[in-house]
Amino acid sequence: MRAIVKTKPEKGFELLEIEEPNIKNDDEIKIKVIQSSICGTDYHIYKWDDWSQKTITIPHVNGHEGLAEVVEVGKNVTSVKVGDTIAYETHYYCGHCYMCTTGDAHVCVNMKILGVHTDGVWADYAVIPASIAFKVDPRVDLKYAALMEPLGNAVHTINYSNILGKHVLVAGAGPIGIMAAEVARKGGAATVMVLEINDFRKKMLEKIGVDAIIDPTKEDAVEVVKKITNGRMADICLEMTGSDVAFNSCIDLVHNCAEINVLSVFGEQQIPARINDIVFKNLKIQGVTGRRIFDTWHIVNDLLANNILNKEVLDGAITHEYPMEKFEEAFKTLESGKAGKIILTINK
Amino acid sequence: MRAIVKTKPEKGFELLEIEEPNIKNDDEIKIKVIQSSICGTDYHIYKWDDWSQKTITIPHVNGHEGLAEVVEVGKNVTSVKVGDTIAYETHYYCGHCYMCTTGDAHVCVNMKILGVHTDGVWADYAVIPASIAFKVDPRVDLKYAALMEPLGNAVHTINYSNILGKHVLVAGAGPIGIMAAEVARKGGAATVMVLEINDFRKKMLEKIGVDAIIDPTKEDAVEVVKKITNGRMADICLEMTGSDVAFNSCIDLVHNCAEINVLSVFGEQQIPARINDIVFKNLKIQGVTGRRIFDTWHIVNDLLANNILNKEVLDGAITHEYPMEKFEEAFKTLESGKAGKIILTINK
Amino acid sequence: MRAIVKTKPEKGFELLEIEEPNIKNDDEIKIKVIQSSICGTDYHIYKWDDWSQKTITIPHVNGHEGLAEVVEVGKNVTSVKVGDTIAYETHYYCGHCYMCTTGDAHVCVNMKILGVHTDGVWADYAVIPASIAFKVDPRVDLKYAALMEPLGNAVHTINYSNILGKHVLVAGAGPIGIMAAEVARKGGAATVMVLEINDFRKKMLEKIGVDAIIDPTKEDAVEVVKKITNGRMADICLEMTGSDVAFNSCIDLVHNCAEINVLSVFGEQQIPARINDIVFKNLKIQGVTGRRIFDTWHIVNDLLANNILNKEVLDGAITHEYPMEKFEEAFKTLESGKAGKIILTINK
Amino acid sequence: MRAIVKTKPEKGFELLEIEEPNIKNDDEIKIKVIQSSICGTDYHIYKWDDWSQKTITIPHVNGHEGLAEVVEVGKNVTSVKVGDTIAYETHYYCGHCYMCTTGDAHVCVNMKILGVHTDGVWADYAVIPASIAFKVDPRVDLKYAALMEPLGNAVHTINYSNILGKHVLVAGAGPIGIMAAEVARKGGAATVMVLEINDFRKKMLEKIGVDAIIDPTKEDAVEVVKKITNGRMADICLEMTGSDVAFNSCIDLVHNCAEINVLSVFGEQQIPARINDIVFKNLKIQGVTGRRIFDTWHIVNDLLANNILNKEVLDGAITHEYPMEKFEEAFKTLESGKAGKIILTINK
Repeated sequence: MRAIVKTKPEKGFELLEIEEPNIKNDDEIKIKVIQSSICGTDYHIYKWDDWSQKTITIPHVNGHEGLAEVVEVGKNVTSVKVGDTIAYETHYYCGHCYMCTTGDAHVCVNMKILGVHTDGVWADYAVIPASIAFKVDPRVDLKYAALMEPLGNAVHTINYSNILGKHVLVAGAGPIGIMAAEVARKGGAATVMVLEINDFRKKMLEKIGVDAIIDPTKEDAVEVVKKITNGRMADICLEMTGSDVAFNSCIDLVHNCAEINVLSVFGEQQIPARINDIVFKNLKIQGVTGRRIFDTWHIVNDLLANNILNKEVLDGAITHEYPMEKFEEAFKTLESGKAGKIILTINK
Repeated sequence: MRAIVKTKPEKGFELLEIEEPNIKNDDEIKIKVIQSSICGTDYHIYKWDDWSQKTITIPHVNGHEGLAEVVEVGKNVTSVKVGDTIAYETHYYCGHCYMCTTGDAHVCVNMKILGVHTDGVWADYAVIPASIAFKVDPRVDLKYAALMEPLGNAVHTINYSNILGKHVLVAGAGPIGIMAAEVARKGGAATVMVLEINDFRKKMLEKIGVDAIIDPTKEDAVEVVKKITNGRMADICLEMTGSDVAFNSCIDLVHNCAEINVLSVFGEQQIPARINDIVFKNLKIQGVTGRRIFDTWHIVNDLLANNILNKEVLDGAITHEYPMEKFEEAFKTLESGKAGKIILTINK
Repeated sequence: MRAIVKTKPEKGFELLEIEEPNIKNDDEIKIKVIQSSICGTDYHIYKWDDWSQKTITIPHVNGHEGLAEVVEVGKNVTSVKVGDTIAYETHYYCGHCYMCTTGDAHVCVNMKILGVHTDGVWADYAVIPASIAFKVDPRVDLKYAALMEPLGNAVHTINYSNILGKHVLVAGAGPIGIMAAEVARKGGAATVMVLEINDFRKKMLEKIGVDAIIDPTKEDAVEVVKKITNGRMADICLEMTGSDVAFNSCIDLVHNCAEINVLSVFGEQQIPARINDIVFKNLKIQGVTGRRIFDTWHIVNDLLANNILNKEVLDGAITHEYPMEKFEEAFKTLESGKAGKIILTINK
Repeated sequence: MRAIVKTKPEKGFELLEIEEPNIKNDDEIKIKVIQSSICGTDYHIYKWDDWSQKTITIPHVNGHEGLAEVVEVGKNVTSVKVGDTIAYETHYYCGHCYMCTTGDAHVCVNMKILGVHTDGVWADYAVIPASIAFKVDPRVDLKYAALMEPLGNAVHTINYSNILGKHVLVAGAGPIGIMAAEVARKGGAATVMVLEINDFRKKMLEKIGVDAIIDPTKEDAVEVVKKITNGRMADICLEMTGSDVAFNSCIDLVHNCAEINVLSVFGEQQIPARINDIVFKNLKIQGVTGRRIFDTWHIVNDLLANNILNKEVLDGAITHEYPMEKFEEAFKTLESGKAGKIILTINK
């Protein structure tokens, strides 16, 4: 079969013919990969940076996100059957640590990542544990399946709060921030306000119809939020900037007892943070990682299957699609910085 | 001033000239009434039924829902000022019982009801405690202010659950049920299904664009919900029928661990209920009364101020408007059974 | 190996020598059974009542609760290893239905019960899926391991509320009710009140030191609760009576917005219930079944491992212990009605 | 009447005879002060530091914590009556801002503090709004009434989590930390571990019977917590150190998805904080200020009225008691650093 493989300890991948993997235990399934999107992690491995050199064992089949068809199932598997279309968590969770046995498998302490610690899915076929497969509702438009993971991040972040009739501030409108703003809009937030300085992203937000796009370099964010919320300030903040300045400024943009749900990754391990104000304002800061397995997936699946979200926003999030063979071109596009989500088509 | 007064122990009211009420303590406000809608309670008093005879002291100024302008404030009052437009809770809560001091004033154990235990608001002026006044956002279209109370019931019922991306079943599409369906639709429910047998109400639901209007006398509700939810059954049920048969059938329409929030009033004090199934399915049954003071009001206010709900649905909920003088006509319309919310205009 | 087997369609079991079971798939473990307690379900099968005749396939190895040592593991199993002491959920959950994938495996829609739908554990050896095994903390006194399941029911029921500093009413002091009262006492309830009419059970409650043992046939429960709670009434009720009269009377013993968590099984599928009062008092009724897998088990394990509960109460819950061979005697004791938990010792 | 008054813009107070205050509006009550404890804020005013100079208007009757008897009530007041023994919130909340009208009056945006922004209670009589009075259960031992405020801080911090059967880590055993450890112990925590370096405080903890007193300067806290929790790490952390080093180290002492409730005040407005780890571990950081009004007070009152907490621990928290006249001595004791809570007796 065809596979995109890291073969040498240097930048780049190779498209090779390799042997098909086979099911090795009763709980595995073999899948025919339909498509897979490119993630930041893939680019790290492509570049062969420090982290990759420490983490990846060569030769390595790359890729982890995506959509596939089940072509064979281990004898214990009843969750999916041959012919099913599935998405999959990229996190192999152990199923028996404290986190896994109390409903928090998304932060399993024995976590392995598909396509990082194992061979991945940029190949005609792959073998994965059935436990990470999520059967997609046939009504979901498959072109959006690549968005289930990042949309899941957005939904997971929002779902630490109840946004109905509330003032929601999204700090940072990267791809996940944009989806979060759209979910907040369709999820009955009274107002949706977005902090963003990048002009390209601001355009995208216009499609969502948010109540304010606030550029803190050009206007007083406190004043804008005060006006939109009739003096109250935001109830819920979704912090997705990765900037410590933004993180701290959010404390002024919410009222006492508000909730700040943080999906950001910051450049430094420690950042200066206004913890005293968090205490005095009685704020909740909720760190958010990944998606709940599979609580969040069900919500994402049902939102997509029932067309609750604006298709124009979803379409806008996917900017390029390449056949597997043109992976080099795909990475060039990625390196240009002018891309949203890029999809590799493996089998149609 | 003019007032609609119960003067005799028999059916009917009279429009009289009476003396204006005055502020009697530091916490009261005097209001100029703008409009007030007619509620079932008013009709009980109009008919002079058993309950009214036991509860109402003649002479009695009737009316409790509505909208008003503040014209005078007691010396302690800082929450509103002269000129403010306000709605008000119809429940005088004591402020110091266990319920009031732990955030549940809506079920104050010393509750009195405006226009029932006190003189009401079908008059040019009224005096009420400032503690029940809610300042309406100037951006709220005042024609919808009369809906704040029933819309508050709908929001309060929904808000015991988080509906984002969930399958929501509304059982019973009376005026509050219809609003609940609309709030669920705009609040990001994946699907909204409604149980209803009345043809007039079914038409109204079409405006909301619900996923299914289920008439259990004509179709198998279990099958419809199963199909819409892709086999899972409803996550959240808003029970608003007042029918014990419907109450029990809802247990079959939700999955295990689901939430059934009940706003119904049933005809009998005890009804046959499938408590065993509630136990075995690990269901939550949440009784709901009134609105949270003022958590729910803020949400309703902010949904209206920001035009989150469909105006056609809101408009449809208000079917008639009469000047105060024509109250007899208003009650005739009410008695005809062909009315939604009826508004009495007191002062424009 | 030895096994207690249902061999004929009539009352009774037989102690037989049968062949040892073997691991059949990668996820199973083979266990050497140490002890197993007798449960109501076992007695149904012993008597060969209607339900048993419809449910059990003869020949059938009986028994489901208990404690065991792992003697062999399937090749996928990493959660336990040979030599570990384990307890186990008696519910085989599928792991992939909506309930299982959202943290509610205890109400899996594809549930099978060990020792009912499969051969059980009243045998020297048994084979079970590793997914139901729970590794017991070595600090847990093994004589209490038989209590982990019923104690889990008590903890699961309590844990729908936060009892710290609250007034807790336990309705019904059967074995689970007694444990619930003890957990409430040690869990920081301000007061623990128990509704019970049986004199034998009242004695047991004295060891716990509850604030009131209320016999509603002899005193006015409302008055007692009012006095103990300084006029407020109970905050949280744990309903474990199985009596519709008791269920309804609990509504008067709690204040508005209180929580009634119901573990009862009632004699009739439908019981007369005061739903209107549940609505007007804004009460939450939480149906409770089983134990959360494994959230509740961890709590039970940690309470036992750290000696938080009164050993006299735990000891009192286990009234008899018989070697496997004397199972007939054990059932005679059970039939006498003068027993709490009865343990069968299989292997020491 | 006698009063302890700040009369000059310099260190110290004076004991003077001044005129009795009178009720000025319908919602106030006049109280005869029984006792009042000295708080850090009082010492700031005593010293006349920068903050005091900016905040206090001379002449100023000092003091805010304490216990009193109601001697007169305004005409609107029904919550307390003459002769009642009351404690009181020191925070005057407005009752009508967004926080106050949604159950979060403890962070009222218009907050004033008794004895800071108004005359205080170190006097024979004081006048306060009835809204801050809390009627103490007659069964509460009045010598502990002075602890209701700091105990309320402890309970408020704990109550953002459900500690039953959980591993609780208290970071910092100042007076509130010690009470928090005691509440956790009596509230059913599986284990209670305390981070503390001060030898005097360690002794106090021995009375509580905590599972570990960890001095991170002398042992590896991670290893100790790992051992006590059987490898899992703490479920809930109550951060009360005021040290950024401790704050950050707590992140390593809890498992993924754990809850860290922070009551600390840190020396700097911004501290270096490991926000990335909070995100990746999916932790919840809950800022905590004050006590919920009056949810927390009810819990504290009911814990004390029912003797749930260890009297030896409570007694240990109060180290000195002086008659009002000896306030100078009291402040000397405070300055010595060898005191816990110091009580001023005003009227016996």
